[in-house]
Amino acid sequence: MENWLTKRAKLNPNKTALIIEHSDFTFSELNSTVQLCASKLHNKLHKGQRAALFISNSFNGYIAILALQQLEVEIVFLNSRLSKEELDFQIHDSKADLCIIDDSSNHEQIDKVDTDKILLSDILSLKSDINYQPAAEFHNESVTSIMYTSGTTGRPKGVLQTFGNHFYSAIGTSLNLGINDRDSWVLAVPLFHISGFSIMMRSLIYGIPVYLVTSFNENYINKILINERATIISLVPTMLKRLLNKLPSGSSYNDHFKCVMLGGGPIDNWTLLRCNMIKIPVIQSYGMTETASNVVALNFRDADKKVGSSGQPLFPVQVRITNAKREGIGDIEIKAPNVAKGYLNHQDLFDKKMTSDGFYRTGDIGYLDDESYLYIKGRKDDMIISGGENIYPEEVENTYSKVQGLENIFVVGIKNDDWGEVPVAYIMLNENANLTAEDLKGFGRDKLAHYKVPKEFRLVTSVPTTASGKVLRRKLNTVDYEKL
Amino acid sequence: MENWLTKRAKLNPNKTALIIEHSDFTFSELNSTVQLCASKLHNKLHKGQRAALFISNSFNGYIAILALQQLEVEIVFLNSRLSKEELDFQIHDSKADLCIIDDSSNHEQIDKVDTDKILLSDILSLKSDINYQPAAEFHNESVTSIMYTSGTTGRPKGVLQTFGNHFYSAIGTSLNLGINDRDSWVLAVPLFHISGFSIMMRSLIYGIPVYLVTSFNENYINKILINERATIISLVPTMLKRLLNKLPSGSSYNDHFKCVMLGGGPIDNWTLLRCNMIKIPVIQSYGMTETASNVVALNFRDADKKVGSSGQPLFPVQVRITNAKREGIGDIEIKAPNVAKGYLNHQDLFDKKMTSDGFYRTGDIGYLDDESYLYIKGRKDDMIISGGENIYPEEVENTYSKVQGLENIFVVGIKNDDWGEVPVAYIMLNENANLTAEDLKGFGRDKLAHYKVPKEFRLVTSVPTTASGKVLRRKLNTVDYEKL
Repeated sequence: MENWLTKRAKLNPNKTALIIEHSDFTFSELNSTVQLCASKLHNKLHKGQRAALFISNSFNGYIAILALQQLEVEIVFLNSRLSKEELDFQIHDSKADLCIIDDSSNHEQIDKVDTDKILLSDILSLKSDINYQPAAEFHNESVTSIMYTSGTTGRPKGVLQTFGNHFYSAIGTSLNLGINDRDSWVLAVPLFHISGFSIMMRSLIYGIPVYLVTSFNENYINKILINERATIISLVPTMLKRLLNKLPSGSSYNDHFKCVMLGGGPIDNWTLLRCNMIKIPVIQSYGMTETASNVVALNFRDADKKVGSSGQPLFPVQVRITNAKREGIGDIEIKAPNVAKGYLNHQDLFDKKMTSDGFYRTGDIGYLDDESYLYIKGRKDDMIISGGENIYPEEVENTYSKVQGLENIFVVGIKNDDWGEVPVAYIMLNENANLTAEDLKGFGRDKLAHYKVPKEFRLVTSVPTTASGKVLRRKLNTVDYEKL
Repeated sequence: MENWLTKRAKLNPNKTALIIEHSDFTFSELNSTVQLCASKLHNKLHKGQRAALFISNSFNGYIAILALQQLEVEIVFLNSRLSKEELDFQIHDSKADLCIIDDSSNHEQIDKVDTDKILLSDILSLKSDINYQPAAEFHNESVTSIMYTSGTTGRPKGVLQTFGNHFYSAIGTSLNLGINDRDSWVLAVPLFHISGFSIMMRSLIYGIPVYLVTSFNENYINKILINERATIISLVPTMLKRLLNKLPSGSSYNDHFKCVMLGGGPIDNWTLLRCNMIKIPVIQSYGMTETASNVVALNFRDADKKVGSSGQPLFPVQVRITNAKREGIGDIEIKAPNVAKGYLNHQDLFDKKMTSDGFYRTGDIGYLDDESYLYIKGRKDDMIISGGENIYPEEVENTYSKVQGLENIFVVGIKNDDWGEVPVAYIMLNENANLTAEDLKGFGRDKLAHYKVPKEFRLVTSVPTTASGKVLRRKLNTVDYEKL
């Protein structure tokens, strides 16, 4: 297919593409700005290379992403909440040729990483490279984005997402929601997540405006949703609750508002009821980095009658349950053209997650009802979802294994009204150890994104295990403990 | 992707899929009926075979098409207006394993063809084959439909259309029009044409109802468009004019009506003005059998300001003009995932129509304005478009070359208010020939679809030629003639 940005600039030059605070940009203006940025970047990067991108939700970050696509440079999206050590790993694991840093982000951690770096402002002060030419086409099979996910074993792995992945993802969503050119999408989730980046790609594919929210200010977002012609917003449960809590009583969103697309974990019924009362439709959805956003979603008509379900597989998506046990609950497997190409440097590990007939083993557990609505019941592993971010206990435990005096640590999620879940740690200390909870939190914050650091350390003398000695994390909440 | 029909039956079992006269069928009912038909057909046909299908716009015809897709049998769509000889050629050229005939069609011509045939009613009286299993998936690269097109040289060629061609075609249109699940499409063009078949495929992909019109009765169609919640209708110019002429004065279409999708040749400004006055939006479009329906279309906003244009290339489509001469007019070339896979048995001829960088040479001539709107200016060859059907003068002339006493015949299109163009013939007779216009029309009707038979025979003594002796068909209208 033709380059999505230049194509859209030809189809809808005068239509609004991006609204950020009090400025808005047409597709033609967006394209010109991106091309200028790309021509400057071309001094540093060229087709086939790979750039790590450290951005916040900023105008420059938005432009930089699109500019790297124009150059046919693969983008390694760095989560700006990661620690120095985590960033270091991802930059070096991906062999990024250059690391680009958004000035407006909090770049303290990335500044410590020893790699070839450049500030976005420094790129913009370069001259345009006269040899620059934008990509003529975006090829379905070409990788455009790499996003790291952790997992139960080993280090985080870079998920290879192609243009085709993003295209089919966007099309699956439009066939479900019925997008038209009067729609617009509020982007209040991180640009470096698939949730945010996929909205950018939809904007190009559908030809609709994005409201880019630079920081999650509830009053500001509510104001957009009440006063502007914004029709869709993607949120995780925490964010939705924060918006509802600040919504002026008696008010609801604008008459054209279509829905909240809700991902990143389960939502409580009370919040759904509140939304229902003030006529804010909530479309629950299910997707992951490996499927380039949503693969399953509810639709408007079913929102009431299928409470608790993530919905039906989108049109290009197949979902099946294998190894089903009682009540049909089993492993959720996905086949879809939006399933990623693989893991960077670890194709073997990705292939292990694929069945011989092309289904991706999600690691989630659930069931399909007799009308093929999916209900998520948990994880095969012990992944914690906190405010839409995935946390693997094993990664946190491995990090802490280096702490002297700490004999054992087991991390689990506990329910939390604000974040859905938060991680807490059950620990055993060596006899002479002299560690405080502050010591342990401090250690974690140096090594891990802050959302991964246990919010509480619980001292125990024993832990429940299986007969073979494997720790049963799910039973840790039954153990007596003393708060450290 | 999962089988589109079974998928849609799972996603929207209770939604209306098909409305035909006073009956309507949900996707679940449609699926059950199709599966029953397919299980019976399985006695005669199996995966990998090819069936020729002779149908009218009937319920059974609709079901048969979908049933053959379930069996993974390639469908050769026969134009029911073809002569016995033309049908014979297509059935044998395609090596169809079976020819299926719709009882409700006028099947006089096909009955004369010597081939393995079966009536749809006879299939329905068979027992179901218990070994039948519907296709699990529809593969983008698999051929599902074969439609014959004539051309300037040689016999008609079967265009190989894949599921992927139809998918991208449907998506291109939905991204342009903004389809949602309250839309519906009136199918009043032939099912055996890409114009009709593509509406069936869109119905499955979008999950919207089709109003199937069995015969083109203006009052009936106007009634649907006035009284029902029908939102889109595909028409060729002749049909649109017939509907407007019968539209009760003072009335227009229902409040939800979105547009007439107009294809199959140019439209006059007077008709567009009439539509504009009574608020019937007309979306002009451009496509062909080789591109599995539309590749270029106007959108609502531009209908007024770009009168005479076919619109902009749809999102997955690239259009370029090569060999441009004055005013930028040149050859129209198309690159898109909906360009067909090739010609059956004649891949070499198809490959000749493809450029080395993957563009298809349409044979049409036109230009793109500076906002990339396409204007069609004609054909490189002398193809005539009459009531939406393509007529190649060479094919008609070759057929007539066997008539004794006819020394020369040159066929051209002349303007006609009802049909856009109709074919007329300029002829020279041998000295002693004793041929009447009726003789010549009768001969043509035996050998050719009736719409291809010249409406008038004009006796001339000389024809304009180039210096090298090639006849200039376009200048024939300047020659003195005597009506035969």
